[in-house]
Amino acid sequence: MSSIFFNPKKVAIIGATANPRKFGNVVTENILMNKERNYEIFLVSLKKQPINGLETYESILDIPGEIDLAIILVPARAVEEVVDDCIKKTVKGIIIVTGGFGEINDEGKTLEKRIAIKCKDASIRVIGPNCVGIQNLDIGLNASFILQPKKGDIGFITQSGSFGAAVLYAMRDANLGCSKFANLGNMIDVSYSEVLEYYNQDPSTKIICMYLESVSKGREFFSCIKNVIPNKPILVVKGGRTATGMRAASSHTGSLSTNYNLLKSAVEQAGGYIIEYIADYTTALKALSFNPIPKGDKIGVLTNSGGSSVLFSDQAEQYGLKFAKFSDELIEKIRPHVIKLVKMVNPLDMIAGAREEQYYQVTKAMLESNDVDIVVPACVITPFLEIEWDEHYRGMIRAWNETGRKKPMIPLLVFADSFPQIHALSEKENSTAFFTPYQAAYACKVLIDRMNYFKKINEDNK
Amino acid sequence: MSSIFFNPKKVAIIGATANPRKFGNVVTENILMNKERNYEIFLVSLKKQPINGLETYESILDIPGEIDLAIILVPARAVEEVVDDCIKKTVKGIIIVTGGFGEINDEGKTLEKRIAIKCKDASIRVIGPNCVGIQNLDIGLNASFILQPKKGDIGFITQSGSFGAAVLYAMRDANLGCSKFANLGNMIDVSYSEVLEYYNQDPSTKIICMYLESVSKGREFFSCIKNVIPNKPILVVKGGRTATGMRAASSHTGSLSTNYNLLKSAVEQAGGYIIEYIADYTTALKALSFNPIPKGDKIGVLTNSGGSSVLFSDQAEQYGLKFAKFSDELIEKIRPHVIKLVKMVNPLDMIAGAREEQYYQVTKAMLESNDVDIVVPACVITPFLEIEWDEHYRGMIRAWNETGRKKPMIPLLVFADSFPQIHALSEKENSTAFFTPYQAAYACKVLIDRMNYFKKINEDNK
Repeated sequence: MSSIFFNPKKVAIIGATANPRKFGNVVTENILMNKERNYEIFLVSLKKQPINGLETYESILDIPGEIDLAIILVPARAVEEVVDDCIKKTVKGIIIVTGGFGEINDEGKTLEKRIAIKCKDASIRVIGPNCVGIQNLDIGLNASFILQPKKGDIGFITQSGSFGAAVLYAMRDANLGCSKFANLGNMIDVSYSEVLEYYNQDPSTKIICMYLESVSKGREFFSCIKNVIPNKPILVVKGGRTATGMRAASSHTGSLSTNYNLLKSAVEQAGGYIIEYIADYTTALKALSFNPIPKGDKIGVLTNSGGSSVLFSDQAEQYGLKFAKFSDELIEKIRPHVIKLVKMVNPLDMIAGAREEQYYQVTKAMLESNDVDIVVPACVITPFLEIEWDEHYRGMIRAWNETGRKKPMIPLLVFADSFPQIHALSEKENSTAFFTPYQAAYACKVLIDRMNYFKKINEDNK
Repeated sequence: MSSIFFNPKKVAIIGATANPRKFGNVVTENILMNKERNYEIFLVSLKKQPINGLETYESILDIPGEIDLAIILVPARAVEEVVDDCIKKTVKGIIIVTGGFGEINDEGKTLEKRIAIKCKDASIRVIGPNCVGIQNLDIGLNASFILQPKKGDIGFITQSGSFGAAVLYAMRDANLGCSKFANLGNMIDVSYSEVLEYYNQDPSTKIICMYLESVSKGREFFSCIKNVIPNKPILVVKGGRTATGMRAASSHTGSLSTNYNLLKSAVEQAGGYIIEYIADYTTALKALSFNPIPKGDKIGVLTNSGGSSVLFSDQAEQYGLKFAKFSDELIEKIRPHVIKLVKMVNPLDMIAGAREEQYYQVTKAMLESNDVDIVVPACVITPFLEIEWDEHYRGMIRAWNETGRKKPMIPLLVFADSFPQIHALSEKENSTAFFTPYQAAYACKVLIDRMNYFKKINEDNK
């Protein structure tokens, strides 16, 4: 199904408007403004005036030739008539962005059901109504009323549009990119399972993350994630984990919230990630998006801040992570690069004067050593001795680049998220950073969990 | 003791240097650069050349008149001689910033012990050696080699200098200010208990936060925090909570790390906060620094994002927080300001189109209502309908200001921490914001815990 939605050739926007105070305008602008767009656009508007220099049609039926995808933005009361036109035009897919249907009252439920049946009879697939829309970053399609993230490898599915918009802000801040985005609203036809299957086939998508409140057709959904997870990790945040949260969720989407423990055990059994705190969401995405899966579970830590590696160690133990024992060979490779006071243990505390060169040399030694599977170069940015704000991080990245990024590296820059230099360097180098010992430890855990998942399925297949 | 250190009239910097590649230069510059400085400075340098236009003396003994505080930055091997001079000069206090003593080897231990005895015999108090130093924002004293935060009401004590520096970055980012800062290094004389007692008396300090790895003289320390907590909340992060962390801590400070469970139960019994994750540190500080203690525990939530209030509700239930039941009176006050679709329940979902005016009116109605003790106005920044990035937040703050900030308000701006407009508004309005549902719920919990603490001591006193 979903190639109709994510890869249309000819798109009609019905209810396009130049009035910036209307939702229809947002979607229209989001599509028209995209410079990488490589599909044709046709605007339908009763006003018949050009929008952004593009002519408009009074009805989709007036557009010459075939239309793949119709995006409907007209008010709820006008939707059914427009759908009838789309059926006459034999479009392949419809996205109904407009709200005011089943989420509101029984009348709305009846109406959306009637639309669903009509479209089914005409073999037309439908997303929505009451949805934010979809995005395909590959072809410059932002058929939604929210901002689009940068292009990347994350396929995103969210049952809450606004929460999805917020996650995109967090992704932008973390230098994370998306391949596809989908919010399906009341789901009178296309389901999350279908989108998941599409993401599974999509070569641009490497990681899948979802925000869910309810799961309909549970068996289909769970068999679907079981299919996907060997190819692509799936991260799930569940809204409505508690009774209070479930009540809020039911009032929010109008559908009964799914039991958390049930979902949790199903996702985890399939080898997916259940993310309890949304701050962990970006941490897990950063870990998976920027790193290969490690070959083993031994962590090597270097730092200029003893206190920070103490806090990392605490968190590491809580997650059952293992610290590498440094061999004599590794120690002899490190020794020339650090001052005499440095004790040759893991975590390796290079003390506050350590600069780019030390970070580069020691990170590289660990990345090249068989003793270590994941390197965590940690630092507190030191405001003295003419040390530059981003130089520790520069050293880490240089070492990682020169060793071909073959091992996971988890840069821990304690509380440095407010330094614009760090964000600029991340962007320039296509890298990322973690800002608390907790985040760094969680990132290690996420990568090791994925390694253990593959180990387990390999053993099961023997 | 501590007024010698935090409020000196005449300060000598021994080992001052103009060479930016030496630690001595950092401290010298940090002191000289401070424009609000209202104490006298004398520089001691063997080079006898002026630094920043200020003349230097070859020895502290050459300085005319009395000196209250000597800050020693010379290399470890020269420290004892300089201390002897300070004794001759009958200074009142000495801060030995220089490292290379007890934290390194037995020789260093012997040396620092000898210095301690000499100073004790001369009735001179000592901070250090091997410390970052202290700061008193009230008098523009940054006697440390790290950056100073903005002036505020937090008294900060940290056993890890570098981790302390990182926390100051987080504070800056969160619009939090400090009154005093102290890192005491090897503590051959002045202890954290004494600093705590000083903070307790200090009118600029309203909240105390500590990072500790080990506690010496436990009984003294615990009786001290018991004295302080009725006046000022104390927040403790313990490095070395686990066996791995404790090993790392011992290698870091050279002293045996204190048992976590012991410290935790002692601090919590005294009514203090043990903070397990350092990200919670700033959350708790923000909650306490910007808000009064609530009169009750009933929370009122408004939002433009159903998903976000679902996630907040989940976290709230996990903390056992209570949602207010809106009275008819409150509902009638809210109703004219929201669209018809809005269901009059708590959390109140005003839907994506809500703007500054709705946030202002509804936040204000809740702040003025007896139904609600803590207001959590939540939003996802909405990139459409010409809504400005900071307008929801503006509405919240306006309502809070107009009601005299008499009730806690916990603005939840989901994943909006990367918006410069939000930080700018926080700074302009002397406000703060929370960026995940977890943070907002934790902030509520911190405030309610403090309220319950007072309730309990009032009952105990009956």
